Amino acid sequence: MTDLLARTIARIQPLDQEAMRAAEARQLQLTKPPRALGRLETISIRLAGITGSERPRLENKVVAVMAADHGVVAEGVSAFPAEVTPAMVMNFVAGGAAINVLSRHVGARVTVTDVGVNADFGDAPGIRHKKVRRGTANMALGPAMSRDEALQAVAVGIELVGEELAGRLDVVALGEMGIGNTTPSSAVIAALTGLPVEQVTGRGTGITVEALAGKVAVIEKALAVNAPVREDPIDVLAKVGGLEIAALAGVVLGAAANRVPAVMDGFISAAAVPVAVRLCHEAVDYILPSHVSIEKGHQAVLDELGLVPLFDLEMRLGEGTGAALGMSVIEAAAKILDGMATFESAGVAGDPNAVDGDLKR
Amino acid sequence: MTDLLARTIARIQPLDQEAMRAAEARQLQLTKPPRALGRLETISIRLAGITGSERPRLENKVVAVMAADHGVVAEGVSAFPAEVTPAMVMNFVAGGAAINVLSRHVGARVTVTDVGVNADFGDAPGIRHKKVRRGTANMALGPAMSRDEALQAVAVGIELVGEELAGRLDVVALGEMGIGNTTPSSAVIAALTGLPVEQVTGRGTGITVEALAGKVAVIEKALAVNAPVREDPIDVLAKVGGLEIAALAGVVLGAAANRVPAVMDGFISAAAVPVAVRLCHEAVDYILPSHVSIEKGHQAVLDELGLVPLFDLEMRLGEGTGAALGMSVIEAAAKILDGMATFESAGVAGDPNAVDGDLKR
Repeated sequence: MTDLLARTIARIQPLDQEAMRAAEARQLQLTKPPRALGRLETISIRLAGITGSERPRLENKVVAVMAADHGVVAEGVSAFPAEVTPAMVMNFVAGGAAINVLSRHVGARVTVTDVGVNADFGDAPGIRHKKVRRGTANMALGPAMSRDEALQAVAVGIELVGEELAGRLDVVALGEMGIGNTTPSSAVIAALTGLPVEQVTGRGTGITVEALAGKVAVIEKALAVNAPVREDPIDVLAKVGGLEIAALAGVVLGAAANRVPAVMDGFISAAAVPVAVRLCHEAVDYILPSHVSIEKGHQAVLDELGLVPLFDLEMRLGEGTGAALGMSVIEAAAKILDGMATFESAGVAGDPNAVDGDLKR
Repeated sequence: MTDLLARTIARIQPLDQEAMRAAEARQLQLTKPPRALGRLETISIRLAGITGSERPRLENKVVAVMAADHGVVAEGVSAFPAEVTPAMVMNFVAGGAAINVLSRHVGARVTVTDVGVNADFGDAPGIRHKKVRRGTANMALGPAMSRDEALQAVAVGIELVGEELAGRLDVVALGEMGIGNTTPSSAVIAALTGLPVEQVTGRGTGITVEALAGKVAVIEKALAVNAPVREDPIDVLAKVGGLEIAALAGVVLGAAANRVPAVMDGFISAAAVPVAVRLCHEAVDYILPSHVSIEKGHQAVLDELGLVPLFDLEMRLGEGTGAALGMSVIEAAAKILDGMATFESAGVAGDPNAVDGDLKR
């Protein structure tokens, strides 16, 4: 473990119970029936615990897009060619991708990090140049990367949080780009959870049912060839993971260490988050889910983490698109807590203690 | 039927199939795997059909809050006293309610209409003064209002759309305030659908389980006393409805007549929408759901209308709060269609026809 990683993990603290109690008490004074805003209220209380503030504000929102390539695409696991990864990175920089549109919509800024794209961007502007290597090796034949490279990629994620905090950061969303990256994600999830590969492997960007069988076989082969150690998440990352998955695990740890909420996206973040949580269990409290994608296995990971998604819009794009939309709902929850009038301030009658707020369906 | 209502219904046209085809074709050219944004894509195509534009924009968003009181609160059906209705109207005007906070968050303006509050607002600013009567009569004893009053209230909703269109209107959300209004909503839904009262009656703002049994009995009595004619939605509105429910039905019809999408909210809108759809079946195509609330019966109405909610955040506040959040997701769908780069414009490789976009879970 690097010094940075050890120091980051050591800084992760439990939620601030006092701030959560204060936020819960405030919710009961707002001009609405108690608990009538459901999960918006519980999210706001969680945000208080994360930030340590009774009335947290999420004005400064960042979507951290980590981009990398995957040697395993040589096995035919993706519907798109690997050249699409650098092309999409340039699309992000130009502002034309879905994540750009949705980030503008919710008022978030997008940061694009090259943590391992198999292309030479030179010093092209608009990209954080943090390439650890030009794509992983083909994990069906051997380790995707070295342990040291996996740790370097985790550090890229941790450092991103520090850099963004310098420019104000209240919430970070987990975004990514990497043709083929559902394959290492499935491998990491299978390795960490012990679930059968076929239960956590889906059709990604749209491979055929026939190609899916081949994808499952490739992942099973990679797990057999590399034998990742389940109890050692860095070993799992190195042997069957990806550079952007490692970097996103770093973002989660960096966010938790700095009391910043981290918003999950789709299937790739569902591989990165368990890595972070295995490295430091307390980090799970700093994670807020957004959507559940249609990629097979996403729900299983959410269940294992005890996270209930905010919505299911049958999305499966990645990039951070679900997280961007979810971030806006999470910000709305914070604004409810901070911005609503109280019964007293508005002069509205209604003793909340006379009302049964503990409704069940 | 009033002339205004007849003219409004006559103007409601089917969706624009050509615009929908153009929007669907455009979605396939955007820099993402085909259909990877799931319901954001289908929503955008629906918006094209509603508006008649291949690239609709939803910049001008309005939450139409209709406020009214209910004589049936004398039967003890609500956890809050009727005086809360005018107090909350003033809270809306002051900007301190949940719907104000969420509307500001999503960039929508709130219009507050007094269609039947049991209080004298004089000419207080910030309120559309359209009072039909000071609250309904107690429907447990006789009709809630006259047929003429129900038609007047529907007209208030139709006219709101016309007024807002003069100030630019791209999408309208159905909001409301009225202590006790889940009771007439359950009655209207039971009368229109024939479902048993207990299957469509919940605990509203938070009455006890014991009080719920009394609420069900009151609604059953109101239906027995008044015998509303299922095939005549205006009769149902007049006998067991509410003035804000009638006005929201008018908003739906006015929106559909003007090719403006109408966004459903919770249980009260779930009573208003079926009234509008019974008056004009084509109106259903102009309705977009937002959330499903925890109020019993909401899901049943959505099922009958063939609408799948966007999210379930265990909300049960009303006011338009779920619709406001939903409106932002719907606007995001429009922005995806309008704002993303195409494969050609971004220089990204990837023949979408080579990809299987018809993924199933």
